[in-house]
Amino acid sequence: MTIRSNGTLQDLIETIRGFDEARDWGKFHSPKNLAIALIIEAGELLEVFRWMTDEESRSIRPESDDYQHSAEELADVFIQLLRIANALDLDLLESARSKIRVDEAHYPVSSSRGNAKKYK
Amino acid sequence: MTIRSNGTLQDLIETIRGFDEARDWGKFHSPKNLAIALIIEAGELLEVFRWMTDEESRSIRPESDDYQHSAEELADVFIQLLRIANALDLDLLESARSKIRVDEAHYPVSSSRGNAKKYK
Amino acid sequence: MTIRSNGTLQDLIETIRGFDEARDWGKFHSPKNLAIALIIEAGELLEVFRWMTDEESRSIRPESDDYQHSAEELADVFIQLLRIANALDLDLLESARSKIRVDEAHYPVSSSRGNAKKYK
Amino acid sequence: MTIRSNGTLQDLIETIRGFDEARDWGKFHSPKNLAIALIIEAGELLEVFRWMTDEESRSIRPESDDYQHSAEELADVFIQLLRIANALDLDLLESARSKIRVDEAHYPVSSSRGNAKKYK
Repeated sequence: MTIRSNGTLQDLIETIRGFDEARDWGKFHSPKNLAIALIIEAGELLEVFRWMTDEESRSIRPESDDYQHSAEELADVFIQLLRIANALDLDLLESARSKIRVDEAHYPVSSSRGNAKKYK
Repeated sequence: MTIRSNGTLQDLIETIRGFDEARDWGKFHSPKNLAIALIIEAGELLEVFRWMTDEESRSIRPESDDYQHSAEELADVFIQLLRIANALDLDLLESARSKIRVDEAHYPVSSSRGNAKKYK
Repeated sequence: MTIRSNGTLQDLIETIRGFDEARDWGKFHSPKNLAIALIIEAGELLEVFRWMTDEESRSIRPESDDYQHSAEELADVFIQLLRIANALDLDLLESARSKIRVDEAHYPVSSSRGNAKKYK
Repeated sequence: MTIRSNGTLQDLIETIRGFDEARDWGKFHSPKNLAIALIIEAGELLEVFRWMTDEESRSIRPESDDYQHSAEELADVFIQLLRIANALDLDLLESARSKIRVDEAHYPVSSSRGNAKKYK
C-alpha cells in the first residue's frame, strides 16, 4: 500500500467528524456500539474471502468485483476504527507505533523468522 | 481524535512492512488470513466493552486499564487493516474518502438526522 | 427456551449431513472455513441488535421482523456449529456439559452472584 | 458428530438456566449482550485455526491441544447460543429445521453440487 491520494489522515478524521455531527449520530456512537459496528464490518470483509483458498485470495485483481467489494469493506472497518479513536480521544498512529515496539520485543527476528508458532 | 504524534500514516505502513519482511511473515499474510486476524482482534476489542453499559463505555478514562487495553486492541486492528491494504496494494485513505461520499448520498442529512433507522 | 418441536438434536445433525453430502460440500467444509462461516453468521446476528439499547433488545416480540431475522441468524450459527462438531467428530452436548462444570468451579455462586467483574 | 452422551439438549438448556439463576446473571443477559458474547467466543474459536492451512485444520487429532481448545470454544459458542434462544424464548431445533428447508430451496442439488459460487 502506498498512499497516492491527496489529503492526510487528519483530514479524513475531520471529514468523518463533520459527517457525524451533521447527522447528530454522536448519540449512537458510544465506544461499545462502535466496537460492535466494527466487528460487523470485519465480518463483511471476511465474507469476501470466505470460500476462497489462500492462493485465490492473493490473486484477486483490482478490476474484479471481489477487489472493489473488499476495498469498500476495508473502508468501512477503517471509518469505524477512526470513530472509536475519536470517541476515546486516542491518537491511533501513536498507539500503533507503540504496539509495534511491543511486538518487536515479543517476536525477536531470530526466533520468529518464517515461524507462525509464537505468532498470536 | 487528533494526531499529536510525529510521523505519518505512510511512515507507519513502512514500519509494518519492514517488521514483516524481517520475519519473513509475508507467506502467512494472504488477504484471507489477514481478514481472519483482523476479526479476531476486533473481537478482543469488543471484549473490553462486553459487560459495560453504553454509558460506562463512554466514561472510561485514559488512566484506566480498560482504556490502555482498548488502545492496544485498536492498534492491533489498525495494524492488520494496514497489512490487508498492503497485500491488496490499496490506498486506504482514498477508499475511505470514496466510501464516505457514497454514505453521504445514502444518508442525506435531512432524513438521517438523529435517526438510526436507515443506518446499516 | 423450551423445545417444542418433534425430533432430536441427533436428527438435525443427520439432516445437515445429508444436505451437505447431496451437494458435495464437504470439500469446502474444513474446520477453518467453517469457523470463518460461523463468525460471519455471528456478525449477522449481532447486526440485528446493533443500534438497539439493551432494553430494546429485551423487548422484541415474536411477531416482529427483528425477531424473525434473529431466529434465522441463530439458526445459521447453530447449523455452522453442528457442521464444525461434525467435521471434528465431537459430541457438542458432552463438550458443553464439561465446559459448564469448569465454569461452575471458575465462578462460585458466592463470589459471582450479581457480579460481572470476574465474568470473562 | 454423533451424540454419545446421556442427557438431551433440553437437559443442557435447564442446566444453563439453573447456572445463570444461581448467579443472578439474567440482568447482564440481554439478547444484545449475549450476541456480543457469542461473537467474541466465535473469535476465540477461529483463533485456534488462524495460521493453519485448510489441510492442517482437517488433520487435528482428539489428543492434541488444538482439539481440546477448539472443543472448549465450540462449547462456549453453544452455551451463548442457547442463552440467546432462552432469552428470546425461541426453539432452536425448530428454527434450524426451518432454515434448512429454506436453504434446500435456495441451493437446489442440481445447480449447487460441488459449487461454492452461490453459497452465501
